[in-house]
Amino acid sequence: MPNDPHESRHLPPAGDGAAAAFALRLLTVRRATEALTRGLSAEDCALQSMPDASPVKWHLAHTTWFFEQFVLGPHAPGYRPFRVEFGYLFNSYYEAVGPRHPRPQRGLLSRPSLDEVFAYRAHVDAALEAFIASGAVPAPLWSVLELGLHHEQQHQELILTDLAHLFSVSPLAPAWRASLPPAGRAPAVPATWLDVPEGVHTLGHAVSEGFAFDNEGPAHRVFVEAAQVASRPVSNGEYAAFVAAGGYRDASLWMSEGWAQVQQHGWDAPARWQRDADGAPWRTRTLAGLRDLDPAEPVCHLSWFEADAYARFAGARLPTEAEWELVARRYPAIGTFVESGRGHPAPMTDGPAIRFFGDVWEWTASAYAPYPGFAPAAGAIGEYNGKFMANQMVLRGGSCATPRSHIRATYRNFFPTHARWQFSGVRLARDHRR
Amino acid sequence: MPNDPHESRHLPPAGDGAAAAFALRLLTVRRATEALTRGLSAEDCALQSMPDASPVKWHLAHTTWFFEQFVLGPHAPGYRPFRVEFGYLFNSYYEAVGPRHPRPQRGLLSRPSLDEVFAYRAHVDAALEAFIASGAVPAPLWSVLELGLHHEQQHQELILTDLAHLFSVSPLAPAWRASLPPAGRAPAVPATWLDVPEGVHTLGHAVSEGFAFDNEGPAHRVFVEAAQVASRPVSNGEYAAFVAAGGYRDASLWMSEGWAQVQQHGWDAPARWQRDADGAPWRTRTLAGLRDLDPAEPVCHLSWFEADAYARFAGARLPTEAEWELVARRYPAIGTFVESGRGHPAPMTDGPAIRFFGDVWEWTASAYAPYPGFAPAAGAIGEYNGKFMANQMVLRGGSCATPRSHIRATYRNFFPTHARWQFSGVRLARDHRR
Amino acid sequence: MPNDPHESRHLPPAGDGAAAAFALRLLTVRRATEALTRGLSAEDCALQSMPDASPVKWHLAHTTWFFEQFVLGPHAPGYRPFRVEFGYLFNSYYEAVGPRHPRPQRGLLSRPSLDEVFAYRAHVDAALEAFIASGAVPAPLWSVLELGLHHEQQHQELILTDLAHLFSVSPLAPAWRASLPPAGRAPAVPATWLDVPEGVHTLGHAVSEGFAFDNEGPAHRVFVEAAQVASRPVSNGEYAAFVAAGGYRDASLWMSEGWAQVQQHGWDAPARWQRDADGAPWRTRTLAGLRDLDPAEPVCHLSWFEADAYARFAGARLPTEAEWELVARRYPAIGTFVESGRGHPAPMTDGPAIRFFGDVWEWTASAYAPYPGFAPAAGAIGEYNGKFMANQMVLRGGSCATPRSHIRATYRNFFPTHARWQFSGVRLARDHRR
Amino acid sequence: MPNDPHESRHLPPAGDGAAAAFALRLLTVRRATEALTRGLSAEDCALQSMPDASPVKWHLAHTTWFFEQFVLGPHAPGYRPFRVEFGYLFNSYYEAVGPRHPRPQRGLLSRPSLDEVFAYRAHVDAALEAFIASGAVPAPLWSVLELGLHHEQQHQELILTDLAHLFSVSPLAPAWRASLPPAGRAPAVPATWLDVPEGVHTLGHAVSEGFAFDNEGPAHRVFVEAAQVASRPVSNGEYAAFVAAGGYRDASLWMSEGWAQVQQHGWDAPARWQRDADGAPWRTRTLAGLRDLDPAEPVCHLSWFEADAYARFAGARLPTEAEWELVARRYPAIGTFVESGRGHPAPMTDGPAIRFFGDVWEWTASAYAPYPGFAPAAGAIGEYNGKFMANQMVLRGGSCATPRSHIRATYRNFFPTHARWQFSGVRLARDHRR
Repeated sequence: MPNDPHESRHLPPAGDGAAAAFALRLLTVRRATEALTRGLSAEDCALQSMPDASPVKWHLAHTTWFFEQFVLGPHAPGYRPFRVEFGYLFNSYYEAVGPRHPRPQRGLLSRPSLDEVFAYRAHVDAALEAFIASGAVPAPLWSVLELGLHHEQQHQELILTDLAHLFSVSPLAPAWRASLPPAGRAPAVPATWLDVPEGVHTLGHAVSEGFAFDNEGPAHRVFVEAAQVASRPVSNGEYAAFVAAGGYRDASLWMSEGWAQVQQHGWDAPARWQRDADGAPWRTRTLAGLRDLDPAEPVCHLSWFEADAYARFAGARLPTEAEWELVARRYPAIGTFVESGRGHPAPMTDGPAIRFFGDVWEWTASAYAPYPGFAPAAGAIGEYNGKFMANQMVLRGGSCATPRSHIRATYRNFFPTHARWQFSGVRLARDHRR
Repeated sequence: MPNDPHESRHLPPAGDGAAAAFALRLLTVRRATEALTRGLSAEDCALQSMPDASPVKWHLAHTTWFFEQFVLGPHAPGYRPFRVEFGYLFNSYYEAVGPRHPRPQRGLLSRPSLDEVFAYRAHVDAALEAFIASGAVPAPLWSVLELGLHHEQQHQELILTDLAHLFSVSPLAPAWRASLPPAGRAPAVPATWLDVPEGVHTLGHAVSEGFAFDNEGPAHRVFVEAAQVASRPVSNGEYAAFVAAGGYRDASLWMSEGWAQVQQHGWDAPARWQRDADGAPWRTRTLAGLRDLDPAEPVCHLSWFEADAYARFAGARLPTEAEWELVARRYPAIGTFVESGRGHPAPMTDGPAIRFFGDVWEWTASAYAPYPGFAPAAGAIGEYNGKFMANQMVLRGGSCATPRSHIRATYRNFFPTHARWQFSGVRLARDHRR
Repeated sequence: MPNDPHESRHLPPAGDGAAAAFALRLLTVRRATEALTRGLSAEDCALQSMPDASPVKWHLAHTTWFFEQFVLGPHAPGYRPFRVEFGYLFNSYYEAVGPRHPRPQRGLLSRPSLDEVFAYRAHVDAALEAFIASGAVPAPLWSVLELGLHHEQQHQELILTDLAHLFSVSPLAPAWRASLPPAGRAPAVPATWLDVPEGVHTLGHAVSEGFAFDNEGPAHRVFVEAAQVASRPVSNGEYAAFVAAGGYRDASLWMSEGWAQVQQHGWDAPARWQRDADGAPWRTRTLAGLRDLDPAEPVCHLSWFEADAYARFAGARLPTEAEWELVARRYPAIGTFVESGRGHPAPMTDGPAIRFFGDVWEWTASAYAPYPGFAPAAGAIGEYNGKFMANQMVLRGGSCATPRSHIRATYRNFFPTHARWQFSGVRLARDHRR
Repeated sequence: MPNDPHESRHLPPAGDGAAAAFALRLLTVRRATEALTRGLSAEDCALQSMPDASPVKWHLAHTTWFFEQFVLGPHAPGYRPFRVEFGYLFNSYYEAVGPRHPRPQRGLLSRPSLDEVFAYRAHVDAALEAFIASGAVPAPLWSVLELGLHHEQQHQELILTDLAHLFSVSPLAPAWRASLPPAGRAPAVPATWLDVPEGVHTLGHAVSEGFAFDNEGPAHRVFVEAAQVASRPVSNGEYAAFVAAGGYRDASLWMSEGWAQVQQHGWDAPARWQRDADGAPWRTRTLAGLRDLDPAEPVCHLSWFEADAYARFAGARLPTEAEWELVARRYPAIGTFVESGRGHPAPMTDGPAIRFFGDVWEWTASAYAPYPGFAPAAGAIGEYNGKFMANQMVLRGGSCATPRSHIRATYRNFFPTHARWQFSGVRLARDHRR
């Protein structure tokens, strides 16, 4: 059963030290989550700025709930839930687990307090540590523990993206971290074209390669036509030229539904760009507050519609996820990740000329769909990825809010075409020019 | 100009001690506001549970803004605003003052923190105290100061009503204060009918009677037919009989628009009533948490549509505000007010048999409209009451969240017909039976 | 039982010829309804241009349904319904009668065809005529028949108002009738002030005065302060000055909710005014097509919010319905009615200087509420008026779409504050100037 | 430029008779459109039953506008538009052509009348005929004429689907054509599995194959894993078993967004299925009125979410469009088409055991996206297909409302995942079973 991520892919750690090593790794990730909230007030962690986003506090609790729900509750002998209501409050979307607090009302929870949520985390962490140390973890459960660790990392990213949205709508323009270096110190490295070779290729994640989410496999063959993808994402400076050229007023560049969004919401630039008047310099709301737009940074907070329209404007197109993966896997996963503490994409002024990882997620031309042979896991855990395979587009590469150890070339992120609050940008591709 | 509340009604305090006495009164009210938040966390004070409600923190800041905007800023020599952005953030609805933060987004402000808002209050209070002590308050400004004091009291009530709504939607059923005595210890006193004498009467607030809001005057004559009003509000027990008799399923009892609300929102009982199953006893969400419904308490959290339908069911009708005022002004303002710390209406089991004040606001049959000869004050202050005189119904009598010194027989509260989150109940009236 | 419109007010016609005379009157009204549709296509009669409006065909059928439902079905021996489904399709809002076709979907009925609806009318008319001639009409039913006749007249007005709305949204600007005389031939007669005497007056419709709707009674006493009302409605020319002076951009003139409507819907002039560019002359969509705005006509298609804002701009206010009725009943009901075939208010250039009836309904300052002692009729017929007494304002005087015999000084029309598609205008009032 | 459908694909007809032959073919198609409206009243043709649907009259006019806008207006010497306003009224979505009447308001046009629209058609047909006969058609225009013909055929289908929706919401259950044979006379032929061979295949429409829409090309290579697709669509009987087994109440079968639709809209069966009570036999609204559900007919009026959930229930999945096309092109396009006059899928009881064409469109697993190398045509015509390539799923095979000459194995129809008003069904596929 090569499609089951929980048994064949994730063997129990071998040897005496393996369980301890896993526990260390897990608790390190848990600590990293908490470190993200340093400097935030209880109020910062309690608010929900839109239905798609969740309060920081909710993320802290939900990732903890995952371990209580799928590991400790059913498997750890004598485990006592921290508080039974949390099973309802912090279930995200698992229908099989039972009813849950409605997503748009996550911001209505002043209780439990942030302090209580931290106590919840400590309670669960202690139980996890003891359970792992006990040697009583049944073999199939290791893959669930591993999944929980990666799930925690996903929510590290969401903590930052949701907080960044909250701060972006505050008239006071608060900052999560001390200010960034000034913008505009150097131009971006030039983009070049990298070849995608024509032919039948094997894509997706193979069981032998270590952990991956179920939607990254199974490995499968695709035929790809010769094409080219750009060596780096599109920069703010390049995108600003599109804005200045009237890109947001030219229907011919847009998908019909994208054009309707432009009209309905009055989009005239990427999310969080602002300026005092027409023609004034652009500034942008970031996790370091309001700052000048840096032309050398990758453009960020684009919807798929904007990425697609820009590519058309540039005489190019979005890469398919196959094209992206084929080229990206040749390069190391170097870039700006959450560990940088930057909370914002870095200018593409130095470092490697070819960049596929970190900084911004890159919209692809591919709708999010199951790979041939895909089958979700059995039970509630199977709701993890498969049930979102409609009306979403794939993004690749990770962002400045992604943990470095979380990303890989086969990783498939997905959001709807109108979503703009992620760290989402665009890379160009084009058919092969003979 | 008898209609101007700010000059003819509110003379400057006479004599040396008068200014000091006013300052003491004002600061006592300001302290009472803050006392309401004792025991609340920063998170409790930051959340907004629906567009009509505001966070506690916002109320704390907005009442402070009022004094900065209308008193200190324009009149106190050398006053420095605490923070200029607050002029935008904490303006409620004064168009003449300039743009303001959108009401439905008051819950998106994690900053300023609760601590900073308390510092803001202290800053303004100190400046007010110094300004009053300086003897430099121009005569016409005393009425604005007096208005600010009463405005502060209004928001004391809103702090409790909005907090009660927030807690009512929390799955954890938090409580603001320690629990109340158990429900159901004694039956409500019987209701009797009190006569409204036929004839031409003078109603409304006269200039000579001390402070009132502009909408309470001018005093004016009305002709009233002989009628009767009940001696106390309708009780939970009486209302529960309406629910049990199918009142929420009988269209003939409802206004057409009220029936549409019943259908659309699935109303089947007053707001915050809940029970485990059909036929199980009712419980209700209160500021003291979830508790058994007390049949002897006044029914609460009714919309006007429900009050009106109940009255029809009972073979009666709602009183007009004239009928209410004519009878109520014969009785003292005794009842449950905010100072009780109860945060909930009290059972009508002992104390006076005739009750018109405190506990619950009572919906009347009267649309909120200007009295003959009404004219709002000039300038931004004139936006206080007059601009809401459309599609609202008058409520009378104050509630368990109203400061005792804030209520009087002429006081006109107003809310739209569908509003249910106030402490709003119902009193019956009927035409005179010969 | 003076409040029952159906027995004490409407005695059975006395004498042999009375029944025949009633039949003649009824059928004359029925024919007049049909005459309004002359020149309209089946398509014109089938469409619904917004949820508040109904297709002409629906009005033709619903008025017929009224007689079938309340007269023929229960009372005429051997009556066979034309088609049983019509009981569901053409019930407007009578909950007691049973379920009904949803109002916003009245425009989805291509069947029955217009021809079939005319056949339905003929079927019911024949049955009515035979039933009346049979002498078998029970005495209490005469008042229902009389009500049906007046109900038919109400829908004559709605046929025109709803058709006018449909045509107003058509890019082709169709006309119902041949064009009107050119606009602007003469100025409006000057408006003067008419006195309202202070004192206790009797208002409303007395049983002895003939037919009235239940909401017009009972006659009752009110105290009215001395005031003045204008001798004619506000003209287009006067209202255009308000528009030109920036009335739609000055929040201080508007109720808070009205200002929100202005912003939300982009109102910048009355409904159906249009011009090619700022500063160009206004034109207006009418039942005679698109034509130049005539400054001498009463302004029309105002919401209550606009009427109220204009009055404030003019240093005046809206009259209460008591003030209006007290003065209006001194004057004859002369004006432009549906019989004129004009379908539009006439310029106030000649004819009487004092005009209270016809041309445009006039918004009052009074919320629609029951008079003291009001009680609706028993049974489904009682749903006629009483259940709409919330969130509506009273209009008085009738319009160019009202049948002349339908209007009287006590007549109370009512619409919500935002409604603009009726022929609704504004008359000024003011407190007495000493 | 192999991607331009208008020049390289559509050569001018060769030889003297070719133009005349084209004219005959075109006018035959135009007549067929009109024949669909036989028996419909002007009212039937004027109404719009939801924003996604259009009135029959609008389709009649819009297809005519296409020829006026893209052929006659710019190219036919001396052509006079029938009525200039129609350029605004009957533009569907071509941004490059200018503003247009809003789609949701197409049902507000009582004018032009149906008669006038037929006159418009005659005017344009005569001009087309004369223009073609004149020999003055420039060579590149032939492809536009050809496109107009196929465009007309597309709207033949929409005339039926939109009319069927209108009739389906009418309480009177009208029929477009005389009734169909009784349901349930024979069982459906058994479904078998057909093999999809593993390997690299060429898919899509090649230039040499005659007319196709731009989105069908270019021909391109894909790698396909071994799989199987069913020999016929799923039947009503098979789908009814899913309904009976609680398929609409089991979240685990649904995409997350699909489950939300089920909850929000209360879906419990395919669109237009109804029954008198739980457990009673199903009936269904068709263009022949309300009739018993025939278990042997293909299930119809499914959303993509329902097709996907059913496939999961059946232990299968939807075919990709590559799998579908690879197998379908082996079989002739035999099935029920619009020419049958049936207006409804036929029972799969006799005729071929393998059916890929006609009766119902079949949802695929493929999001609608450009093929490798796709480029839309230049100018307004280029808005035809490409701008809808977001958030739509591909359907294949044509339906009972599709003209027989309009369908082919490469044809790509597309609708959003929630759409149910088309004749849309489902075919199963599965991975190869070794």
